[in-house]
Amino acid sequence: MALDEAELIARYFAPLAGAGGLGLRDDAALLAPPPGAEIVLTADALVADVHFFAADPPGRIAAKALAVNLSDLAAKAAEPLGFLLTLALPPGWTPDWLEGFAQGLGEAAGAQACPLLGGDTVATPGPLSLSITALGSVPAGGMVRRAGAKPGDLLYVSGTIGDAALGLALRRAELGQGPPPEWAAALSSEQQETLVNRYLQPQPRLGLRAALRACASAAMDISDGLVGDLRAMMRASGTSARVDLREPPFSAAASAALRVDASLLERIACGGDDYEILCAVPPAKAERFASLAAEAGVAVVPIGSVEPASRGDLFLAPGGEPLAFRRERFSHF
Amino acid sequence: MALDEAELIARYFAPLAGAGGLGLRDDAALLAPPPGAEIVLTADALVADVHFFAADPPGRIAAKALAVNLSDLAAKAAEPLGFLLTLALPPGWTPDWLEGFAQGLGEAAGAQACPLLGGDTVATPGPLSLSITALGSVPAGGMVRRAGAKPGDLLYVSGTIGDAALGLALRRAELGQGPPPEWAAALSSEQQETLVNRYLQPQPRLGLRAALRACASAAMDISDGLVGDLRAMMRASGTSARVDLREPPFSAAASAALRVDASLLERIACGGDDYEILCAVPPAKAERFASLAAEAGVAVVPIGSVEPASRGDLFLAPGGEPLAFRRERFSHF
Repeated sequence: MALDEAELIARYFAPLAGAGGLGLRDDAALLAPPPGAEIVLTADALVADVHFFAADPPGRIAAKALAVNLSDLAAKAAEPLGFLLTLALPPGWTPDWLEGFAQGLGEAAGAQACPLLGGDTVATPGPLSLSITALGSVPAGGMVRRAGAKPGDLLYVSGTIGDAALGLALRRAELGQGPPPEWAAALSSEQQETLVNRYLQPQPRLGLRAALRACASAAMDISDGLVGDLRAMMRASGTSARVDLREPPFSAAASAALRVDASLLERIACGGDDYEILCAVPPAKAERFASLAAEAGVAVVPIGSVEPASRGDLFLAPGGEPLAFRRERFSHF
Repeated sequence: MALDEAELIARYFAPLAGAGGLGLRDDAALLAPPPGAEIVLTADALVADVHFFAADPPGRIAAKALAVNLSDLAAKAAEPLGFLLTLALPPGWTPDWLEGFAQGLGEAAGAQACPLLGGDTVATPGPLSLSITALGSVPAGGMVRRAGAKPGDLLYVSGTIGDAALGLALRRAELGQGPPPEWAAALSSEQQETLVNRYLQPQPRLGLRAALRACASAAMDISDGLVGDLRAMMRASGTSARVDLREPPFSAAASAALRVDASLLERIACGGDDYEILCAVPPAKAERFASLAAEAGVAVVPIGSVEPASRGDLFLAPGGEPLAFRRERFSHF
């Protein structure tokens, strides 16, 4: 390898550094928090062939690693301040790969106004691994918690659910790691591409910040599947949920797949990698929530209501019948 | 494996969480920065059998991962606020291992008043890897930079240099990964143990904070060897260094090893993992620096002076003759 660590950082990562990154030439980054703000912090690790395919385009891997962290900030109604990246490179990495990685990272960071502040690059004999810590700010007291849902609140999700779980199956087939799923034949090639892109390139819903801050009593991002994450929010809040999927937050592509294979409902409702926002909104604020979300250009769909814990969770299928799932929560672990 | 990720976090890591960690039950942590403070941020990744031995006691691995980050905060004169940990566990981890890891992490975090704020636990098919992001605070403008050294400044190091590099050779032999080094026979078993502990358990010099903030024009922590890191500080500052090792910052154990094998000087001066502080102090502040360091109980030793860049770096050996090194900077990369 021709580059040492300092040269590698100077060439690929220093151009992405925000002011607080000090050109990545010091031991640490420096951040002046906005006056009166509190800092929201989140960290996620991703491992090749566990959380993404080693063969994915490097820019997509980088952008996804940032997006999954920004999705947490979005759910907490926080404004991104910057991020730190640690990258463990396996033997045989190439300058081309790293250039693609840095370019994708820079584009994603620029699009979300979330500059690189610092990090570390190391060698690993194992799979490519990376870890991102993202920082955001909220006005003091303004972070939306996971544990704040109250009986009577309405439940909303942003965007559509299940696309990434279906996209993962298509992506696996694209990479020759499995046969194409039978339902794929019912989808147009555009629909298939949409699903794969939803898997490869989650869109953190940072635009929903103002709506969440003004209206949500609780929020979290959906990373491990709607059903499991909803249950986690209800457990944290000491409540239960009644979810009605008769007007479901499903994309046209997911709906087309579901029409030919009804058993996909479990994968759609319980699969991971959605990176949409789940939130609870008191009925008195529902109209304002919908209006602020529309202003931000983020689709939100009501999916049910928060109930007293004693009722137990209830999921109604698109057909109206109660649903039970075999494997509720997606886990890479 | 009997535990899912949420149970694992609840059992092993939630007990370590500071107030800002919200019991590790939310998507993010929340930190209220001290009024008027700036936030200093640093991240380091560690990979088994690259940065530590997989067979090292898990509590030591955890404490070292935290220490190498706190060492960066110490060099910047920052007060720890907390840290985030991402942990990638290989197949076959055991509850005992994780319990030891969490216990060592908790003890180290408690000793440095640096609570766990959040993080992520994932599975990896590769070696155990972990990444820590540590946050500290400084009064606005109070961070000591790497790039501030001026010709005429005196150069100091804290503690002693080279112990960890010698300890690494001993540790390798302990683990059956190499023969015992010949110089080991000249050391008492206590001296050998001291060196191994210096490798396994770096001590971040957070006590030096007040002295650095009051007196240092530049500082960095020595993680990749005194010679290479000093050159990096000089390059960043646009200066060169004259280092005189005639009264060297060497431990009794390192000096004993050096007496039987003069060639060890390169390993001592260029080896990694010291986690001591290198700093530049204007002569007018030298007395105060020494006195504040003594108050803090941190030994500091003058090792030379900062010179104009045009002079070029000069290293004088303990015998007074100019030194050249074959491989100046330690690199895991």
